[in-house]
Amino acid sequence: MADFECKNSNLGVFEPGNLKVQTIKVKKSDSSPPPPTQLYIVAPVSEGTYPLLLFCHGYCVQNSWYSQLLHHISSHGYIIVSPKLYKCMLIALNNEVKTAAKVTDWLCTGLRSVLPQKVQPDLSRVALSGHGRGGKIAFALALGHVPTSLKFKALLGIDPVACRNPPTWPEPEILTYVPRSFDLSIPVGVIGTGLGNQPKCMMPPFAPNGINHAEFFNESKPPCSYFLAMNYGGYDMLDESKAALASLACKSGKGSKALMRKGVGGIVVAFLKAYLGGQDDDLKAIVDAPTIAPITLDPVIFVKE
Amino acid sequence: MADFECKNSNLGVFEPGNLKVQTIKVKKSDSSPPPPTQLYIVAPVSEGTYPLLLFCHGYCVQNSWYSQLLHHISSHGYIIVSPKLYKCMLIALNNEVKTAAKVTDWLCTGLRSVLPQKVQPDLSRVALSGHGRGGKIAFALALGHVPTSLKFKALLGIDPVACRNPPTWPEPEILTYVPRSFDLSIPVGVIGTGLGNQPKCMMPPFAPNGINHAEFFNESKPPCSYFLAMNYGGYDMLDESKAALASLACKSGKGSKALMRKGVGGIVVAFLKAYLGGQDDDLKAIVDAPTIAPITLDPVIFVKE
Repeated sequence: MADFECKNSNLGVFEPGNLKVQTIKVKKSDSSPPPPTQLYIVAPVSEGTYPLLLFCHGYCVQNSWYSQLLHHISSHGYIIVSPKLYKCMLIALNNEVKTAAKVTDWLCTGLRSVLPQKVQPDLSRVALSGHGRGGKIAFALALGHVPTSLKFKALLGIDPVACRNPPTWPEPEILTYVPRSFDLSIPVGVIGTGLGNQPKCMMPPFAPNGINHAEFFNESKPPCSYFLAMNYGGYDMLDESKAALASLACKSGKGSKALMRKGVGGIVVAFLKAYLGGQDDDLKAIVDAPTIAPITLDPVIFVKE
Repeated sequence: MADFECKNSNLGVFEPGNLKVQTIKVKKSDSSPPPPTQLYIVAPVSEGTYPLLLFCHGYCVQNSWYSQLLHHISSHGYIIVSPKLYKCMLIALNNEVKTAAKVTDWLCTGLRSVLPQKVQPDLSRVALSGHGRGGKIAFALALGHVPTSLKFKALLGIDPVACRNPPTWPEPEILTYVPRSFDLSIPVGVIGTGLGNQPKCMMPPFAPNGINHAEFFNESKPPCSYFLAMNYGGYDMLDESKAALASLACKSGKGSKALMRKGVGGIVVAFLKAYLGGQDDDLKAIVDAPTIAPITLDPVIFVKE
């Protein structure tokens, strides 16, 4: 255990849920209609109808690198679909939003066929999330940069960052630098990391000031919530071994990465419970007393209206 | 009259007040104790005790270049003290905050002697404001970067901008890129301009994205208010002839500069009435119906708590 971030939480969302979960990897050839891209799905095993989370992975990482975080969330009763957004890990294309939009619409026609028969998605309750550059993709998708027939009920960015990488890629501009300018009528949440804006050795920061979580929150209309994991870096919520790998290039926190995953996972679950399940007790509890989280969240902000 | 911004307001704060005002220019040698720097003072002529506004001018402009705006504000019953913050117009020094702090403390010992005897300052009701780079100075002063014995009751930044100009000047860092991180317990207001972030011909923008009004607002704790004069540039509230001069180097709005001065002046007066006078009707009126202003304010945001 590292010197930082070693609290235990007494709020259930920060611990794994009661449901056993399964991983389902879907290739383009695996189903009919075929998914627009390879999918990494995590879903409860037990029979039931579950709300859905579409999750966009970050830059230079794969959708399967979040397995521990996604398992945590899914075990609380959510089906998570994470599409592969790049054709290879290092060369990204500018059609990520299009891909994410195609996957969104495919959920209506194709998801049921790749899930076990007893596990049903509730397509009236779908939230959208993404990490890093995937957070920007999520905002772009929610903002309608590419239209979808399926609509999202809530949007949660995990350390979203708007940088172009490399700077010449054509891609949708998201940030306007006008407070509350995002034209969204759904609840928005933003989780930031306190070290994401710091350089690592010779490498530039993962999420520079002015284009990171703080600005995404500033441009969000109420109801919106903000949580800063102040002692962690932008890739510290990845699977243990992948977070270690990322820490070679990106500033990383000294604290336990397992607690960071619990902290981020817990916020996601509390957010989903509030806006897909209508139960906002846990989200309110975190807002009212951020110290109940297993990691230091400072600040936590909730803007109701 | 230009094509934009030609509304008439029906709220009194946007029109000149009932009081006749006078300009008092104070040199360092003019009073005892001497002021730390030359001062441009605007005050009502009538006998009375008036709350105070300390106003920090912007970069490359002089304190007297805001005479029309400051007369508007003063005519509603305020004494305004605007110190000269640079030794010459184009070569700025890094001791502006120190100068502003010295002036703040001098208000207690020296202001009375430079005002007509029947015009009394109420030193229990002092607000702080500044424009552009002077807005940053105002925030730095309120944040205690240089301590003062006199305390401010409210802070209002007019298109505040945090850039270093030139970049090598040592000066206090203000922005943290963490929402609500300014350690201030007084009400804060921010007026932004929508064109301040745009370049003019070959000149860089006056107030680039990420270091301008939007970020200052994001880092302010409630109660805080935000007003974006979306169709105007960063120097459009200067005196008519000076605004025209500034428009050669900075993006400027097409609308009437007189209306811009009324718009900004009205917001300042409404803000001062709320936080120095305890009468928040006008501020609430603007927040509730921004179209009552003579210029387009979009967005207007008020965060109560």
